[in-house]
Amino acid sequence: MTDVQSSFDDRNMRIQKVGVRNVRYPVTVLDRREGSQSTHARVDLFADLPHRFRGTHMSRFIEVFNRYHRDLTMPRFLEMLEEIRISLEAERAYAEIEFPYYMEKAAPVSGQRSMMEYTCHYSGTSTGVHQHFVVGVDVPVTTLCPCSREISDRGAHNQRGVVRTRIELGPFFWFEEIIELVEAAASSGLHTLLKREDEKYVTERAYDHPVFVEDLVREVAVSMEDAHDFPWFSVEAENFESIHNHEAYAYIERSRQEVP
Amino acid sequence: MTDVQSSFDDRNMRIQKVGVRNVRYPVTVLDRREGSQSTHARVDLFADLPHRFRGTHMSRFIEVFNRYHRDLTMPRFLEMLEEIRISLEAERAYAEIEFPYYMEKAAPVSGQRSMMEYTCHYSGTSTGVHQHFVVGVDVPVTTLCPCSREISDRGAHNQRGVVRTRIELGPFFWFEEIIELVEAAASSGLHTLLKREDEKYVTERAYDHPVFVEDLVREVAVSMEDAHDFPWFSVEAENFESIHNHEAYAYIERSRQEVP
Amino acid sequence: MTDVQSSFDDRNMRIQKVGVRNVRYPVTVLDRREGSQSTHARVDLFADLPHRFRGTHMSRFIEVFNRYHRDLTMPRFLEMLEEIRISLEAERAYAEIEFPYYMEKAAPVSGQRSMMEYTCHYSGTSTGVHQHFVVGVDVPVTTLCPCSREISDRGAHNQRGVVRTRIELGPFFWFEEIIELVEAAASSGLHTLLKREDEKYVTERAYDHPVFVEDLVREVAVSMEDAHDFPWFSVEAENFESIHNHEAYAYIERSRQEVP
Amino acid sequence: MTDVQSSFDDRNMRIQKVGVRNVRYPVTVLDRREGSQSTHARVDLFADLPHRFRGTHMSRFIEVFNRYHRDLTMPRFLEMLEEIRISLEAERAYAEIEFPYYMEKAAPVSGQRSMMEYTCHYSGTSTGVHQHFVVGVDVPVTTLCPCSREISDRGAHNQRGVVRTRIELGPFFWFEEIIELVEAAASSGLHTLLKREDEKYVTERAYDHPVFVEDLVREVAVSMEDAHDFPWFSVEAENFESIHNHEAYAYIERSRQEVP
Repeated sequence: MTDVQSSFDDRNMRIQKVGVRNVRYPVTVLDRREGSQSTHARVDLFADLPHRFRGTHMSRFIEVFNRYHRDLTMPRFLEMLEEIRISLEAERAYAEIEFPYYMEKAAPVSGQRSMMEYTCHYSGTSTGVHQHFVVGVDVPVTTLCPCSREISDRGAHNQRGVVRTRIELGPFFWFEEIIELVEAAASSGLHTLLKREDEKYVTERAYDHPVFVEDLVREVAVSMEDAHDFPWFSVEAENFESIHNHEAYAYIERSRQEVP
Repeated sequence: MTDVQSSFDDRNMRIQKVGVRNVRYPVTVLDRREGSQSTHARVDLFADLPHRFRGTHMSRFIEVFNRYHRDLTMPRFLEMLEEIRISLEAERAYAEIEFPYYMEKAAPVSGQRSMMEYTCHYSGTSTGVHQHFVVGVDVPVTTLCPCSREISDRGAHNQRGVVRTRIELGPFFWFEEIIELVEAAASSGLHTLLKREDEKYVTERAYDHPVFVEDLVREVAVSMEDAHDFPWFSVEAENFESIHNHEAYAYIERSRQEVP
Repeated sequence: MTDVQSSFDDRNMRIQKVGVRNVRYPVTVLDRREGSQSTHARVDLFADLPHRFRGTHMSRFIEVFNRYHRDLTMPRFLEMLEEIRISLEAERAYAEIEFPYYMEKAAPVSGQRSMMEYTCHYSGTSTGVHQHFVVGVDVPVTTLCPCSREISDRGAHNQRGVVRTRIELGPFFWFEEIIELVEAAASSGLHTLLKREDEKYVTERAYDHPVFVEDLVREVAVSMEDAHDFPWFSVEAENFESIHNHEAYAYIERSRQEVP
Repeated sequence: MTDVQSSFDDRNMRIQKVGVRNVRYPVTVLDRREGSQSTHARVDLFADLPHRFRGTHMSRFIEVFNRYHRDLTMPRFLEMLEEIRISLEAERAYAEIEFPYYMEKAAPVSGQRSMMEYTCHYSGTSTGVHQHFVVGVDVPVTTLCPCSREISDRGAHNQRGVVRTRIELGPFFWFEEIIELVEAAASSGLHTLLKREDEKYVTERAYDHPVFVEDLVREVAVSMEDAHDFPWFSVEAENFESIHNHEAYAYIERSRQEVP
């Protein structure tokens, strides 16, 4: 059968990225407590395409990913990327995956246990010579507004928010470390199960730790610089404001050079 | 050209609904203050299909809707439904549309004006003899938790929520009436623009009007029964809990017979 | 601490449904080939609330679900529902969960294996005396338009579609049976990995098996009636039309009495 | 009342972006045929925050936007950006908006008219000295696979896809020009309303113009370079593959220097 994709292309245009998006696949990742965790990911896999070829070979992306999905630690993700690059005879391969990650949490007073979902990401590039790898963890939190608390005679508006971290590797870390560090910087962490005594605790803790989105991205940045020597990271905070129908947002990024 | 759709079907199965979904179209609806409002809708249009026909004629749904979209008042929506039914030689026609509706609001203290978006719905059926028409308005609100307030020494968790009303016609009403009635029943209404004095006001008002989702659906139901003699309505409240990563939910429905 | 939820409510209004929505939780379900499959679900849990109580106890829904999530076969789901009902002193408990389910598939000619994701649902009600349980499987497919094929000199428009089945239990069945039956009724099933010889096969198979959404819901209905004696089921087909920016849709439901 | 936001921050960290996201607001934009079009946008507005301030003043973003929304031509959008920057005493202001845009289209043979929705974007930055403005238009299309057509004895898989263009200004252009140029490069454009003779036409036209996502981004790039001297642009094509449950994707970007 004719290989239409390999035919010569005379438009003389290199394509920066071509591949598959939104592939849903089971994956197994590392879990600090359990050793490993079975979850499933949305997967994007790309490579560049030299100007002389009409098309890429889409099925090869899946063939390679299918050999790696059962053990997708961070080093294995980079191996997979390089295997995609070679298999497609490309200069550069890209991959992004996003998956839910579960952690058991104890309620702060009652100690009752339940599962919390966090969203994690891997994003990488490989050129054969260079590799670039960014890991992300999104952590839902409570934020209580310092301005509302200061100016109001009683109460303070608060809401669910989310902190999205992206971290260039660098040093090894567990998802759980980033989750704990973000929850400590927020007005409160979230829980799936809270009894009455826990609800009192998180309400008062939030009132005692008011943060703007601006405070939150700075606090998380400080904690991340204290914890590890990451080459680069970014922190994004977004509040689903309880008094507005839109979100409040802050974004900070830091590279190693900026750390004093 | 052959009319494949009209060919005889021998599987002897009536199809309850067939048609088009998720058509995006500009529409014009009534606005209490401005007379009319241009917006755009997601549109679902269906009819039943007798067992003897293989397929319906999908393009006719669009042809009919295209004649009505510039003036889509509630009575016109019912006329359109009946025209779809006749055009498709069906026993029953169905339509559902959803559209954003904008209302200018003044901030409670500063009086500063901005636009707020609400989501509205029409849902109807026509059999030629009978017509059934339900109108919906979704209103985002602030809710403050009565339990958290009661048991905590300071503060109270609060969050954005949404109240979804569905109302069978019945008596004429403006979207604005339902919006005002829901916002009055909530801990606070939302605003796109609040200055510092307004933020103090809404924070304290929410603290002074704590509501569970259960309170909210009951209060809205009481107000709706006081305002109009609707044959049937439902009220759904959903809180994007600031202390959980899931929603708290309540649903009530009432028909005319239940009103004392 | 005061139990605000249990305080007396004098508005005299029963609430039909109150509970938690959109809880994300790991669950384990049955897998025909592997015995069991670890996945995770979006979970809605509700009960009714008698008119005399102000609020429900939201944390109990999670406490009960947390005891069941590691083994959520269909009979266990019903036990869980009944335990929720008793725990909340309600007349009626409701639960709905939705989860991705993975199945390994071989490409039709090359035999290459890859994983395909399907979406499954459980939806149940328990009153202590009566239980009602509906299972759903959503199957993505290819559909090729019979009209386009008939009237065109070459080619025929085709597209991705989805068939959503809902089945009242009744007799035991595997998700895999429903998936296979739906894929057989469509122009073609979908695959994550296809080599060139497979692409030729699925293209020709789709051309040789043209179906309208109307054909598809009827064919699936016929196959389901042949396969099992379900008390009730529904089939919904939705095409992401390649020639329109909207969907074509058909819905059929059948109960045992209608089967000849 | 205390201005908490203006208090001194000693963490010594500049924040790159802070502001509001996902504000929904009515806007009026230019329409080639009608002069102007009323639609509504999702709006993100940001500025940077110097290290010495604890927070930004979120309400000012809305105050400025509210003065511009009734006339949001491209030059006015840049004026608005600069006004935000000054109002917030920032070095840099950012804005992104996305809105549906409607165009009336005639079916290719019958000439029947209906409305089609496209998604448009503005994205800008202003530093007082420099301004950067990118306009986007997303165009849904039909794509028919050249490989499937070549290797199959009959038929060819085809599907709905979307082409997303982003264009740096540069020379003035109408949204309509980009829409027409993309639809010409695809296997076929989409229509909301097609009669049988039109369906025959688009089926055969797609069969006669097969394109990979790779072909599509290159063809659109060629047409854009022929039409205008844009400083930079990108083209992204994504196919909702009819034979897979994932998307095929290609991305190309070009700057003025690369044009021969």
